[in-house]
Amino acid sequence: MAQYAIGVDFGTLSGRAVLVETATGEELASAVYDYPHGVMDQCLPDGTALPPEWALQHPSDYFGVLSETIPAVLEKAGVSAGEVVGVGIDFTACTVLPVKSDGTPLCFLPQYQHNPHAYVKLWKHHAAQDKADRLNAAAAERGEKWLARYGGKVSSEWLFPKLWQILNEAPALYADMDYFIEAADWVVWQLTGTLTRSSCTAGYKALWSKQDGYPDSSFFKALDPRLERVVEEKLFGPVLPLGAKAGEITALSASLTGLLPGTAVAVANVDAHVCVPAVKISGPGKMLAIMGTSTCHMLLSEKETPVPGICGAVLDGILPNFCGYEAGQSCVGDHFAWLIDRLLPADYRAEAERRGLNPHQLLREKAERLAPGESGLLALDWWNGNRSVLADVSLSGLLLGVTLATKAEEIYRALIEATAYGTRKIIENFRQSGVAVEEFYAAGGIPQKDPMAMQIYADVINMPVRIAGSAQGPALGAAIFGAAAAGREGGGYGSVSEAAAAMGKLKDTVYLPDKDHAAVYDILYTEYDRLHDYFGRGGNDVMKRLKALRRDVKGGNLPC
Amino acid sequence: MAQYAIGVDFGTLSGRAVLVETATGEELASAVYDYPHGVMDQCLPDGTALPPEWALQHPSDYFGVLSETIPAVLEKAGVSAGEVVGVGIDFTACTVLPVKSDGTPLCFLPQYQHNPHAYVKLWKHHAAQDKADRLNAAAAERGEKWLARYGGKVSSEWLFPKLWQILNEAPALYADMDYFIEAADWVVWQLTGTLTRSSCTAGYKALWSKQDGYPDSSFFKALDPRLERVVEEKLFGPVLPLGAKAGEITALSASLTGLLPGTAVAVANVDAHVCVPAVKISGPGKMLAIMGTSTCHMLLSEKETPVPGICGAVLDGILPNFCGYEAGQSCVGDHFAWLIDRLLPADYRAEAERRGLNPHQLLREKAERLAPGESGLLALDWWNGNRSVLADVSLSGLLLGVTLATKAEEIYRALIEATAYGTRKIIENFRQSGVAVEEFYAAGGIPQKDPMAMQIYADVINMPVRIAGSAQGPALGAAIFGAAAAGREGGGYGSVSEAAAAMGKLKDTVYLPDKDHAAVYDILYTEYDRLHDYFGRGGNDVMKRLKALRRDVKGGNLPC
Repeated sequence: MAQYAIGVDFGTLSGRAVLVETATGEELASAVYDYPHGVMDQCLPDGTALPPEWALQHPSDYFGVLSETIPAVLEKAGVSAGEVVGVGIDFTACTVLPVKSDGTPLCFLPQYQHNPHAYVKLWKHHAAQDKADRLNAAAAERGEKWLARYGGKVSSEWLFPKLWQILNEAPALYADMDYFIEAADWVVWQLTGTLTRSSCTAGYKALWSKQDGYPDSSFFKALDPRLERVVEEKLFGPVLPLGAKAGEITALSASLTGLLPGTAVAVANVDAHVCVPAVKISGPGKMLAIMGTSTCHMLLSEKETPVPGICGAVLDGILPNFCGYEAGQSCVGDHFAWLIDRLLPADYRAEAERRGLNPHQLLREKAERLAPGESGLLALDWWNGNRSVLADVSLSGLLLGVTLATKAEEIYRALIEATAYGTRKIIENFRQSGVAVEEFYAAGGIPQKDPMAMQIYADVINMPVRIAGSAQGPALGAAIFGAAAAGREGGGYGSVSEAAAAMGKLKDTVYLPDKDHAAVYDILYTEYDRLHDYFGRGGNDVMKRLKALRRDVKGGNLPC
Repeated sequence: MAQYAIGVDFGTLSGRAVLVETATGEELASAVYDYPHGVMDQCLPDGTALPPEWALQHPSDYFGVLSETIPAVLEKAGVSAGEVVGVGIDFTACTVLPVKSDGTPLCFLPQYQHNPHAYVKLWKHHAAQDKADRLNAAAAERGEKWLARYGGKVSSEWLFPKLWQILNEAPALYADMDYFIEAADWVVWQLTGTLTRSSCTAGYKALWSKQDGYPDSSFFKALDPRLERVVEEKLFGPVLPLGAKAGEITALSASLTGLLPGTAVAVANVDAHVCVPAVKISGPGKMLAIMGTSTCHMLLSEKETPVPGICGAVLDGILPNFCGYEAGQSCVGDHFAWLIDRLLPADYRAEAERRGLNPHQLLREKAERLAPGESGLLALDWWNGNRSVLADVSLSGLLLGVTLATKAEEIYRALIEATAYGTRKIIENFRQSGVAVEEFYAAGGIPQKDPMAMQIYADVINMPVRIAGSAQGPALGAAIFGAAAAGREGGGYGSVSEAAAAMGKLKDTVYLPDKDHAAVYDILYTEYDRLHDYFGRGGNDVMKRLKALRRDVKGGNLPC
């Protein structure tokens, strides 16, 4: 009898379940549930206005995903709950909420329904930058050794800046919150009845490490005396390694999902990290880039080595018993969408409509005819700042080499190339730090849709590019963790690696570097690298000064 | 009885005559004649194909201008030929042709009709760059002192590179040519029957100076032994100062134009230089910018001072008895047109059409709402290279500070600002060299159409901007020179200054700098200046390397 695992991927606007055959990795059915509340960045459901930079979610939407999509995939595939051996979930992160000790989100309590701090703070809630700045300054000043694991910089998107914001702006609510928890871990708790935390969310987003745990209370006290015991007070719960079983479906969650009580549930995962086994990666030296609006880079190593400018290095953070490195580019597909949204000429739009193409297809068709170096353009891919390796949101975009003959498709290609140079910079940064990068894998939307971009990446990094076999990589990855959580005795696999070998998928297509193109791109990358360092490492801080001036002008603070 | 002067402006695509009352400067009538042959940059009239970078004209078109437009303005205004005291002409330059000693263009001779070198080489004929490069190298090596008058660099557009190209590529035609002459001087010759050359064309385009004449024969010999006697052999003709009378309408030219024999004809002028008296400038310290697709800057000084990176410093070059300085920006309005031609989004185009605006008007309306510094953008205005003060065509455009929120109107404004910074750089370069710039005047199409740009210029240069009173500045200027050529005894004026005082015109509108805006622009200009020097003066020659790579790639010369 065939057996199955279910992966549930909680995205920014919707959740998706996929039902996968454990023996083959075949995806039999999938179902999507759009969050009724979406992203709340203007106001709460009751109309309470939100300040700028806020981004919230409603936890009831996550229940909707569980109760709608899991029964749907069972029904679509004609599979009975008894044939499902395990469930895994992945989530955006750091997406985090305040709860009572029984798991009730504070926003479910009548007294907090009008308080924005009672809701889920979505990963892209950016209103705690000042807290992140102070945290970074204090960590640097005290020489906190954990700072090196995060490339020297903590993001405002992570757990402690968001938690500290609550303490400052809603101290009574803060006091009334029993725990502050990743939505990923909260969903696993709802399924299993047991509070656990994931080594992935804790490691990448909450400064936790397998050897040292969370930062010392003395550090938190130095930040704010009220934070001295924040770990004991708000972060209760054992941190379990990725790949472990968090618990089993309870009677209550069985009634919600249609699964059988006792079905294995994996420790919660994060949407990028979970993709690694979905492309069969099970060891060091193989970089996975998950490419969409932005890109996350995942890489395993047997030892933990400090690498400057990365997002995080976490033992058990991606696969058990490896150090998992995360790096990233904060703007990739967003660059290409910007050009189309803001500057696509009328005649191009008309041509695309006439020929039944979307604008990306039309620009790709035109850009594909250009040889490397032919446009004379070079860009720095910093339209949304730089995540790795400069970790500086105050940088901005640059386009150089423009002439009166420059066309939209040349800019389009230059932006793709710039993101490829950015990835090469990340690869070279790992190598210079002694972490091998020997193979390159691509997942996410862009590799599925844009062969030209994949060829450019292969040419720029001068390595073959292998493509994820599933368009639903996170959900497939979550199902792989679900199968591993079931264990061999439970009808699943003895490890994530075993499950990945059976269930992970790659396309047959491999993009091989073209020798001539790679030679031109070597020259162009050298130019990119020089501009990267000049504008990014203090040669000329004009980008930061322009952003500061912009803030002053918008705030009415003219310089005279 | 009222008296009149006629100015005839020979442009790139058409010629225009304007009839002006000498007492008041009132423009009574104008007439335009489009050149039937236009710009020949693909082939000759017989179909003979032209190589890249060529740009020719047909001298018969200039006869058409004289025979069509002068009678037309007389008729439109109801003025008789006897009421016209003088005629002046201005021309694009260096626009130059080979002729026989009787003035017959070689292209009129049957044996040369199929030879491209027999035609007029238009100012933008760019096929003699290699000659200009060799000429510059030789001049620098020999320490030719005249080189400093041209900011250290001779342009491929000028007379000697074009002449040398003929010698190399068509030596028999070269031998058969009696003179090589500016079209401006050739037209005056056709009107007066006497060959003269203008101090303006000779000074700015043929390396001539009032004190030293043309460069030594030893210099030309060093370039190419065949050029040793080029001045005696091909450049025959007295050089007369601007403002003088070249001669009088002959019986033959009277029959062509409808003017009376004996009417005074001024020494030929150049389209930019001729505009100076049209805005009443008659002395030092007053810069005139003629702003259109590109910008020319005109400035007078009592003494000749070396100024790096200018186009030329010529005694009698703009007004008699002053040193006339010319500087320039090779791309101004062309920047704004590029954005609209290449990247105007469909919804903007639709809005403009719906509201009956042209796209420039729409972008201006949106850009005008932005405060200085608000977009966070900064550009280098080098989409078509840099003419002054770097004099480097191999530079290219740069746009910095782009974010995902950047809109078309922000880029539009940033490009206008960049051209204003470029003008400020030229002003500061003059001042640093000891040449005063105390007032600023603007002529050409942009000042007539774009109040926002003029306000930005006033704010960036922190000086009032005065605007030319005539939309036909070159033709008005030519008429002023015509009135001066007539002399007081001939019903005109005793000098160009006198004529300018009576006939020159300014608008009442003066754009005054806004103190707050000027303070922000001081900051932004400092950033511009730093990038200008970094990319333009050897800090990072990436723009040149990208252009060289582009040539290699297009030429099939891959680097491996």
